[in-house]
Order: sequence, then C-alpha cells, then structure tokens
Amino acid sequence: MPLRTDGRAADQMRRVSVTPDYLLTAEGSALIEFGHTRVLCTASVEESVPAFKRNSGEGWVTAEYSMLPRATSTRTPREVTKGRASGRTLEIQRLIGRSMRAIVDLKKLGERSIFLDCDVLQADGGTRTAAITGAMVALGIAVGKLSSAKLVPPGVLRDTVAAVSVGIVGGAPMLDLCYAEDSSAEVDMNVVLTGAGQYVELQSTAEQVPFDDAQLAAMIALARKGIGELTAMQRQYVSL
Amino acid sequence: MPLRTDGRAADQMRRVSVTPDYLLTAEGSALIEFGHTRVLCTASVEESVPAFKRNSGEGWVTAEYSMLPRATSTRTPREVTKGRASGRTLEIQRLIGRSMRAIVDLKKLGERSIFLDCDVLQADGGTRTAAITGAMVALGIAVGKLSSAKLVPPGVLRDTVAAVSVGIVGGAPMLDLCYAEDSSAEVDMNVVLTGAGQYVELQSTAEQVPFDDAQLAAMIALARKGIGELTAMQRQYVSL
Amino acid sequence: MPLRTDGRAADQMRRVSVTPDYLLTAEGSALIEFGHTRVLCTASVEESVPAFKRNSGEGWVTAEYSMLPRATSTRTPREVTKGRASGRTLEIQRLIGRSMRAIVDLKKLGERSIFLDCDVLQADGGTRTAAITGAMVALGIAVGKLSSAKLVPPGVLRDTVAAVSVGIVGGAPMLDLCYAEDSSAEVDMNVVLTGAGQYVELQSTAEQVPFDDAQLAAMIALARKGIGELTAMQRQYVSL
Amino acid sequence: MPLRTDGRAADQMRRVSVTPDYLLTAEGSALIEFGHTRVLCTASVEESVPAFKRNSGEGWVTAEYSMLPRATSTRTPREVTKGRASGRTLEIQRLIGRSMRAIVDLKKLGERSIFLDCDVLQADGGTRTAAITGAMVALGIAVGKLSSAKLVPPGVLRDTVAAVSVGIVGGAPMLDLCYAEDSSAEVDMNVVLTGAGQYVELQSTAEQVPFDDAQLAAMIALARKGIGELTAMQRQYVSL
Amino acid sequence: MPLRTDGRAADQMRRVSVTPDYLLTAEGSALIEFGHTRVLCTASVEESVPAFKRNSGEGWVTAEYSMLPRATSTRTPREVTKGRASGRTLEIQRLIGRSMRAIVDLKKLGERSIFLDCDVLQADGGTRTAAITGAMVALGIAVGKLSSAKLVPPGVLRDTVAAVSVGIVGGAPMLDLCYAEDSSAEVDMNVVLTGAGQYVELQSTAEQVPFDDAQLAAMIALARKGIGELTAMQRQYVSL
Amino acid sequence: MPLRTDGRAADQMRRVSVTPDYLLTAEGSALIEFGHTRVLCTASVEESVPAFKRNSGEGWVTAEYSMLPRATSTRTPREVTKGRASGRTLEIQRLIGRSMRAIVDLKKLGERSIFLDCDVLQADGGTRTAAITGAMVALGIAVGKLSSAKLVPPGVLRDTVAAVSVGIVGGAPMLDLCYAEDSSAEVDMNVVLTGAGQYVELQSTAEQVPFDDAQLAAMIALARKGIGELTAMQRQYVSL
Repeated sequence: MPLRTDGRAADQMRRVSVTPDYLLTAEGSALIEFGHTRVLCTASVEESVPAFKRNSGEGWVTAEYSMLPRATSTRTPREVTKGRASGRTLEIQRLIGRSMRAIVDLKKLGERSIFLDCDVLQADGGTRTAAITGAMVALGIAVGKLSSAKLVPPGVLRDTVAAVSVGIVGGAPMLDLCYAEDSSAEVDMNVVLTGAGQYVELQSTAEQVPFDDAQLAAMIALARKGIGELTAMQRQYVSL
Repeated sequence: MPLRTDGRAADQMRRVSVTPDYLLTAEGSALIEFGHTRVLCTASVEESVPAFKRNSGEGWVTAEYSMLPRATSTRTPREVTKGRASGRTLEIQRLIGRSMRAIVDLKKLGERSIFLDCDVLQADGGTRTAAITGAMVALGIAVGKLSSAKLVPPGVLRDTVAAVSVGIVGGAPMLDLCYAEDSSAEVDMNVVLTGAGQYVELQSTAEQVPFDDAQLAAMIALARKGIGELTAMQRQYVSL
Repeated sequence: MPLRTDGRAADQMRRVSVTPDYLLTAEGSALIEFGHTRVLCTASVEESVPAFKRNSGEGWVTAEYSMLPRATSTRTPREVTKGRASGRTLEIQRLIGRSMRAIVDLKKLGERSIFLDCDVLQADGGTRTAAITGAMVALGIAVGKLSSAKLVPPGVLRDTVAAVSVGIVGGAPMLDLCYAEDSSAEVDMNVVLTGAGQYVELQSTAEQVPFDDAQLAAMIALARKGIGELTAMQRQYVSL
Repeated sequence: MPLRTDGRAADQMRRVSVTPDYLLTAEGSALIEFGHTRVLCTASVEESVPAFKRNSGEGWVTAEYSMLPRATSTRTPREVTKGRASGRTLEIQRLIGRSMRAIVDLKKLGERSIFLDCDVLQADGGTRTAAITGAMVALGIAVGKLSSAKLVPPGVLRDTVAAVSVGIVGGAPMLDLCYAEDSSAEVDMNVVLTGAGQYVELQSTAEQVPFDDAQLAAMIALARKGIGELTAMQRQYVSL
Repeated sequence: MPLRTDGRAADQMRRVSVTPDYLLTAEGSALIEFGHTRVLCTASVEESVPAFKRNSGEGWVTAEYSMLPRATSTRTPREVTKGRASGRTLEIQRLIGRSMRAIVDLKKLGERSIFLDCDVLQADGGTRTAAITGAMVALGIAVGKLSSAKLVPPGVLRDTVAAVSVGIVGGAPMLDLCYAEDSSAEVDMNVVLTGAGQYVELQSTAEQVPFDDAQLAAMIALARKGIGELTAMQRQYVSL
Repeated sequence: MPLRTDGRAADQMRRVSVTPDYLLTAEGSALIEFGHTRVLCTASVEESVPAFKRNSGEGWVTAEYSMLPRATSTRTPREVTKGRASGRTLEIQRLIGRSMRAIVDLKKLGERSIFLDCDVLQADGGTRTAAITGAMVALGIAVGKLSSAKLVPPGVLRDTVAAVSVGIVGGAPMLDLCYAEDSSAEVDMNVVLTGAGQYVELQSTAEQVPFDDAQLAAMIALARKGIGELTAMQRQYVSL
C-alpha cells in the first residue's frame, strides 16, 4: 500500500477547517483550510447585474481567484505586474463561477450579482477545490442574510456544492493531493459534486501517462468519499 | 429517439474532412472540417526551447488557438483590440498543448519546439475538438519531415491523439454537437483519447442540470465511437 | 530585360483568383489569391455606428487586418501576445478603411456600419493590395444583399476600388511584387484606383535609393495596367 | 475634548496585535492588526538583485502592496482587471520600500534581494502605516534567519522603523485615524520614524484646510507617542 | 559654508522666469524655468466633470505630468512604450492635483473641470515644484478668462499656491536643489505653501540618513523664504 | 484665385523658423515652427543598436512622435492613458524614421543608434512635415558633433531631407496646409524630398474625391517649390 508523504491513508482527506465570518466587511466570508492550504473566500452582493442579464429578471454569480505572491514556497510575481491574469487563474475562476451557478436559482436571486473572491493565503495543493468548498460557505452566509432580510424568497440555493482533487500517484489512486503528491501525479482530477451527489464538473488530465476506465472509476469513488465529508461540514454553516 | 437539427443519428459524427499541407509556408499544416466548423492547423518547428527546458535535452510542444472575427454568425471583436486573450481562448490552447504533449516523447524530439497554431475560420460547435484532431495531423506531418531529414530518431510520436465533444441534449446523449445543440445542452463534455483508446483529458460540465453515473457512461461510449473514426482518418496522414 | 524570380514579364500580374462567399457566417466574404498570397476577406454589417456618426444619418465603413502566425515562412508571434497591434498592422488597416470609404456613399448606406476583416492565411508579398481588392468583393456582396432586401437605396457603391503594388527592383519598374522582389526593391509603391481610374491612394517609399519623376511615371503606368485587370475581375462579383 | 467614534482618547492608538510567522511558506511573515485593519506582511529572500545593483556588492529591498477586493466595505475591483496598479498603490509601495531601505545596510545584506509583500485583508484606515510596521517584523524575522544561517554578518539592520498616521479631525489633532476619521480629516499625515526616533518620512497633506506650524508640531508629538509604542512591540520579535 | 555647484548661497533660489500665454491653443499656459529646469504648463477648461462629481454642483481640478524623453541628459524611453505611467509620474501628478485643489473653491468653479498639464521640456532638479508653481500661473490665467466672461463668480481662487524643494546636502540645508545636489542629498523635502504661508503639502524623505527636528526646522525656514519669492512672482500674472 | 484663410498665395509657405540647440541636454535639438505649428525635435546618440543590427557593422536611426495634450485647440488625452500609441502616431513616426534613414549612411555611422524625438508643442496642420524638417536639423547637429569628435568618418549624411504638405482645397492645389485647410481638403499629400530633389516618400490620399494625373502633377510642383525653400533653410545649420 502506497505511503503518503504525510502518513495519510490513500482515501483520507487532510484536516479541513473553516472560520466563518472571517471578515467584518463582507456579506459572507470564510477562511477555509485543507491541511496547509488556506484560502480566504468572500461573497459580495451588488444590486446590479452585467449587461447580458439586464432586464432578464435573473441575477448573476461570478468568481475571482488569486494567489498572494508568497502563498507558494518561492515567491510568484503578482499578475498585476504582467498586466493580466494567467491562463491558469482564468481557468480556475471560471470553474468556481460555473460550480456556484450550478446550485443557485438565478431567477429567485433576482436582478443582483454575487461575487465570490477566493484569495489563496498559503498553497499546498488543492487550492481550487478548497476555494470552491469555501466559496460555497461564504455564498451560503450571504444568501442567508438576504433571506433573513426578506430580500429573496426561499430556495435561492437549490443544493450545496463541494470539490476535491484526486489522482494517480505512483500507480495508486489517492484522495486530496497535497502539493508534493500533485506535482508527481500521473493523473490529476478535480471533481465537483452537489450535496445530493450529482456531477457538476469532472476534469481529468493525464499529466504523463494516459489512464483507463478502471482508474477513472477508482478516482471517482475516492472523490465521492471526500466530498461526502465536505458536504457534511458545509451544512453546519449553510441552510438550504 | 431524439431528432437532431441536421437529421443525424445520436451516435453519428458530422462529415469530417482534412486537407493536409494546406499551406506552403509551414512545416506541417492541415485544414480540418467537422461539418461547418473549419479550423486551419499549422505546426511550426523552431530550433530553440523556452527557458524552463534549456539544457534539459528535451524539447517542448505548445499550442495557440484563435477565432477569426467572422468565424461566428455575428462578428466577435479581435482579442488584440482588448489587449489580451480571453479566459476561454487560454483554456482551449492549454488543453490543445497538453493533449499533444501526452503523445510526444520530448526527449526524442530533442531541444527544439513545435508550435501548433489552430485558427478557426468558421465555427459551428466543436472547435476545440476539431483543433486537437487537426493539430495532430499537422504535428504528424511536421514530425515526419524531421524524421525524413534524420533530425530526430524514430518514435517521437508514441501514439496519435484525437478529440470529440459529446453532451446531453433534451435528455439524450449525443455525439459531436453542432453549435445549436451545444448551446442548448444540459451537459457538455470533451473527451481526448489516444489512438490506443486511453484517456488523455476528460472535461465534463453541467451547464444547467447535474448529471449521474449512467449519463457519464453513455457519453463516454459515444465519445469512444467518434474518436475511433477520427483516429482511422488521422492514420492516413500520420505514421507512427 | 529583367528576369523575375517566377519568370513573369515586368508588367505581368501573378495569377489572381477569387472564391466568393467562402464563409456561410458572414454577409459578404471572399478568399482572394495573388499568386501564393492568400487573404480571407469578410464584410460584416452591423445596425449601429460609432459615436462620432450617431444621429448623423450616415453610416461608417472600417477595416481590420491581421496575419495568421504561420502565414510567413518563419512563425510570427500573434499580436495579442504583445497586447497591441503593430504599427504596420494599424497602418494597413487604416489604408484599407480609407480605400473602401472612398467609393461608398455613407448617406445612402444609412446609420449602419460595415466591418471589413482581412486575414492573411499565407503571405508572399502584396498582402495589403490583395486585401483591398478582396475586401471590395466582400463589400460588394454584402451591399448587394442589403440592396436585395431593400434596406438601402441604389447607389451605395459609387464605383469599385482595387489596388496593386509596383516597385523598382534591380533598377527596373515591375508590377505586383512577390515577397522576394519586395524585400530587395529600391522603391516600393502601393496604388489604389477607382474603377474609373482615378487615384484614391498613392504611397511610394524609397527603401534605399531616392527616385525621380521618370521612375514615378513608369510605376504609375504599370499600376494602371494591373488595376485594370483587377477591376474587370471584381465586376464579375460586384454590381454597381 | 473631541469625542472619537470608537471612544479612544485623541492620543490613543487602536489595539495593535501581531501574529509572527503567520505563514509556513515565507522566510519571514507577520499578520498585523491596527484595530480592524489587518495586513498580511511577508518577507521573501531571493539570491539575486535587480540589474542596477548587479556586481555592486550590495543587496536590494523593495515592497509591494495590495488590497484584497473585499478588504473594504464595498467591493473594489482587482487592479489586475484594469491591467495596472493604481497611483495610490504605487505610491504606497514606494513608501514602504524606502522606509525599509532606510534601516537596512545593503552592503552587509550582500547581493541578494528582500521583497516585502503587504496584502491588506481588511481595511479600516492606516493600512500603509500598519504595512510598514508589520513589514518591519517580517523583515526582522527573515534577516534573523539569514543571520542564524551565517549568510550575513551582524548589523544588517541598523535600527527598526515604524509608522503611524495622525491628522486634524474637526479641528483637533488625533493619533492613528480609523477610516471614518480619515475620510473627514482636514489634514492627514503619515510619519515614519526609526527606533531611535529620527525621521525617515514625513508626508502631510491638507485635504481641505491648509495648516500651520502649531498644528504640525502637535501632529508630530502624537506620532512620536504612537511610534514609541509600536517600536516596543516590534522589539519583541526583531533583534538588532 | 557649503559651496554649491553653481556658486549660489545655501538660501538662494535659481533664476526663475515665466512666459505666460506660451500657447495660443490653451485657456491658460505658462512656460516656467527654475534655472535649467523648463516646464510647459497648460490649463484646459472642459464643461464636464468626472462621474463622482456629477450633479454635485461642484467642479474638479486635476493634473497630469510627463517628461519629454530627452528632458534628461540621457534619453528616457516614453512611458507609452511601456503602456503605463511610472509610479513616480503618478505620484507627482497626484501631488500637483491636490495642491491646486487646495486653493480652488470647487463650488464657485461650477460643474466644469480644469486639467493642468505639466510637461517637462528640460530637467535639472525640482521639476515637480516648478510644475506646481507654473501650473498655478496657467490656472490663474484660465480662471481669469472664465471670470472675465462672467462664467464664474469672484473668488474661485481662494489663494495662490507655490512649491520649492529643499534638502540636506553634505550635512547642510539648502534651497532649490539642482539635479547634481538632489542626487547626492541625504534628505530631500518638497514643500507646498499657500500665498498666506500655510502648509498644503510637506513631503520629506531620508534618502540615506534619518534626520532630526532641528534639520526639519532649518529646511522649513529655507522653503518659506523661497516660496515667498515665488508667490511674489506669481502675483504678477494671477489676480485673486 | 482661391482666398486662403491667412491671406497667403496658393504656392506660399507659412513663416518657417528654427531655433537650433534649443535644449542643453541633447546631442542635437531644434525647435521648428511652420506658422503656429511648433515641434521640438531632439537627436539622441546611443552607443548600442537594436538586436537585428548587432554585429552588422551598421548603425540605426529611428524616430518617435507625440503631441502634447494641449497642442490642439481642445485637449487630447495622453496616449499613455490608453496604454498604447494610436495608429496615426505609429504611422507618423515610421514615416519620420524612414525619411531620416534615406539620407544616412548606416555603415559610416557605425554600430550606434540615433533616436529622433519629435514632440508637438502646438499643432496647426503639417506637424509631420515640420517634424521631418526639424528632425533633419537636430540630426545634422548631432552628426556634426560626432564628426568633430572624430567618432565617425565624413559622409554619414549623404544629403538632407525635408517635407511639406500639399493638397486640393476647394478644387485648387495649395502648398503647406494649415489645420483649417487640411480638414476641408479633398486631397491631402505629403512629399519628402532629398536636398537634390529626389523622392523619398510620396503619400497622397483622396479624403473625399478621387484625383487625376493633372492634379497630382500640380501638387508635386507646389511641393518642390516649398521643399526648395526648406532645404535652403536647413543648410544654414547642417553641413554635409
């Protein structure tokens, strides 16, 4: 059986913790940790929508993602210095946005926007899946406030959503890869599921060695286990 | 049984055609068509590598993707006007690059780079999968020339790679979505397989309705059928 | 008598061919070839005008020009990578736009815009003159559709316009320079004439050796001959 | 006597707290809080110097500053979206950099660079002075590690440096303005002093009403008091 | 007593001269010289205000600053080449704008904007202080024209404003530093005062050696002397 | 006979004046005026060449052009604000650069670069032709200094070069158009000639009405007259 760098079993998540309402300034916020990975997620409600939603009676949910320069073990220059976000950043924030929209009823939200900002304070693998899982908490808190203030009807959130990374490392399927595992993985997969266990996103990439159906099935099983735990955690802070 | 807008069966590809060596200027080129989708793919060999590969003894393969402004039925402003490529463009070109690298032996390629440029002349859905399939042909032609000139040893290409889109439209799984189908699909999935049928990339997104394991399996089966046909077509132009 | 690299006489055009309606997506389109130079020209009609024409009762015609990265015999990086179009690109697209506006009656066009997009698929000299000549065909087709649909009155096009390059190469005046001739020319001149033979643009540059009145006259005579042939070709596709 | 919004005396600092070594990834780090203002400061050591210091035998110290989008009570768009840092951001990071260089012996540092990154997680006035004070702690920790590893001689830090804001609010001089005070202040002043009490920077701006020598003296006295307290706090974490 | 490079006494300004109405095109303009430093200042009146002042009944005053590439003794590349203004440029133009707004009654100005453009034709130290002093003259001329045309009531200008640099060079306080003095100064200070002698801005930076209260007082005294002379000069061209 | 707005004859230049050595900082400089048009031209010598000329034994000459924001009768925003030079600016600076290179022997110049910076202080038509004519003077002064210092052999300048605008206004050919004439001209033409009277550039544009051979000949004759006068003026400051 494969030995993991931090002694975990192959199907074991890292320690996950959440600090809800981490900031006074935002409608919703949560500091989420997957092991050493630490992401600050905020939800900002704005009473306007982008041009393509105007007069549609529907709202919009979008996300932005960024890493602080010293989230990584060597310093990464800020993207503003280059004048534009990298392809990796844009890809991740599009993924977060789609994941959130999959469980929000935009009609019930009404013509307002929610921005989810996910800023990685410290990165040790799985930042995008931690960001999705934490953004869900921040979103839930913000929607809860809209709901308490009777600004939206019940049911804006149709379900929760959570995400985890899985992969094939040294030939073995593993759950919730840390950076050291992720950078030597043969296959890397991110799975986003609803609380009810249906697929929202499945993104699997063979970094070096193509994979087969059995490996795909094994990775999906691990992901279902991890996301089950994350969903239970989220439900402490988010009411549907 | 679902009726498709163009009368195809659910498991039927659109007409695929390839014009190899479409340009005189490039080491490898191919104009590929999936129905009305038309992508010009070129492979450019350069005798240098990016900084992170210098003195590694290995080469590099990368891709760029773009749509001409009037590839679409209403004109899309050029990205240069905005000063940067969109997230969608960057995401697609990263996908094409990873797909090509999955079947190239970078050590055998030696310290040189191959750029795959995929420019969409006309778009009717499936531009990224047509681009991957056509880029493989352009790459094969260019590697063939390097090989004939004895600049590289045999085996630079470990296999071929091809891609197709599948989706759930009106509740039914379908192969090779055209634009009208793609824009009303509940689930959209891009599959990239090697000639040997192993997974290189699997990207599945629930646009509106989360999906389950049975739907996932049905979509994968359709993709395997379509890619089988594309691989056979590619082997007319590419020798391993 | 000077020997040309491709065996042509000094006053002979390269083979010119046009594929009208090359795309399904655009109101007007034409693939034009001057020898190996191949430019895809599209005309897009939009029911709005730029701010400086609003409420003027007049329309607007403008152009964009670009080269695909592998149009040239070594790959040229995309301008979007640098974040801005080069001076050469901007200069050419301004020239194409002015040439088209010279023969369009903007009042009869009404408050709508026509964008001419000229994308060079393969470049072997004379791309800007091929672009002007091909854009005229795309424009003519698009205006023809507006006219058939009774959206514009007769006479939107006051005339046609076509362009050719001439130069002094090895001391001798020559018509329609290919890339090899252009890059060794002492003088390079682009001439844009109406169908009626009047000047729209005359741009002549001494690359190395200043020129005199006799050389100017000889170049103009060659240009008149070439443009006469181009005008006859255009009239097959464009009705005034 | 003026009543402050949070009940403080005019010469009283907000509660200041520091979490040293907040991150595992950086050579030095500190989370600093001035009341609700919360800034994450990191010090990154790199074994290279900018071009203008190469072969000088001297090192370099520089700083970057940024606010997370939801540090403020309404969301501020990220600067990367606009493609460039604002004038305010550039001004603040130049100030932080100069302040640090004022107490570093660049010759003793040797040909290496230290980057101070100051990211505001929550903003309630005084972010630049909190950033300078916290960056000093992060810098001290990083230099301490270089020193323990015998990479630098003693005396790289000639002194400490700390900063505080003062102002005239409703006619009265006040120490350490929170956001509500800062935005209604007649005069706003930032003072940077060494541990020994000498001036490094003095920046005073009459926002609405010019000020006189007596007011200048009163503000300087308040700043000296606050900085004395900050210096004592810093000395718990930084050894000279 | 310290010897200055150009033989001046420590408390002596360089020769200051002003050419009012240097341009025909602008509402107000002045070419100002502090020794070899030569700055062209223009004031442009526009009948609109930025978004944050709309419907406020108030106007706005703002400034831009730039150096021509060969204002310096070696050529400096234009900022447009890099695509953005440097931090130094932004810092200076914010300073000029704040200084002007300190003496303008924005309510009396009405909903219009005044742009002060300060372009350095030749630089020999003190460009920002010359720019402030010259912009005041251009502003005064422009406001004078608005006043003569009865477009504004009396009192738009509450006072004049002028600026000078002072510093500690070789241990001695000096007034109006030229470039050679400025680049070897231990302390560099810019002072902006109203005609009545009150502070608008005080910016003091220890470039190498922190400074004390006595040095601060000595620099302020020199600045008061210099600004007194500049104010007298300005009053020849500006009526309050 | 057409009446010109300023009472000139159709074949009469505006008053032309030159202030050589306008700046202390540059190797060569000249302030040139064509009527109210006022352009500051500088020549900067740098002991390096761009990459494409390295180890060629040849030097390089290039130009940049810009307008100050208030050179025009309404303020034009700075190009740095937009992040890039406009097409018009790039077109003009390419024209100036080519014109200068037409008369410089790059081999005799040796591996060094000369930058010509042309900054328009006030614009009243003909800024590009004034810039070329003034840049020639600045270039001549700078080459004269290189020559006096024995850094270059004789003959770096093969001739002088000067430029003037001509046009058809109200049906009549006219020399040296001011802004009012230029903006109502049917045809606008810029001519660049060597001192010996040969063509360097000829750029003619039909703004509204195409033109014929007779009009072309009339415009060329006017240009020859004006450039003759400019050449005589230049020879007071430039020795060949």
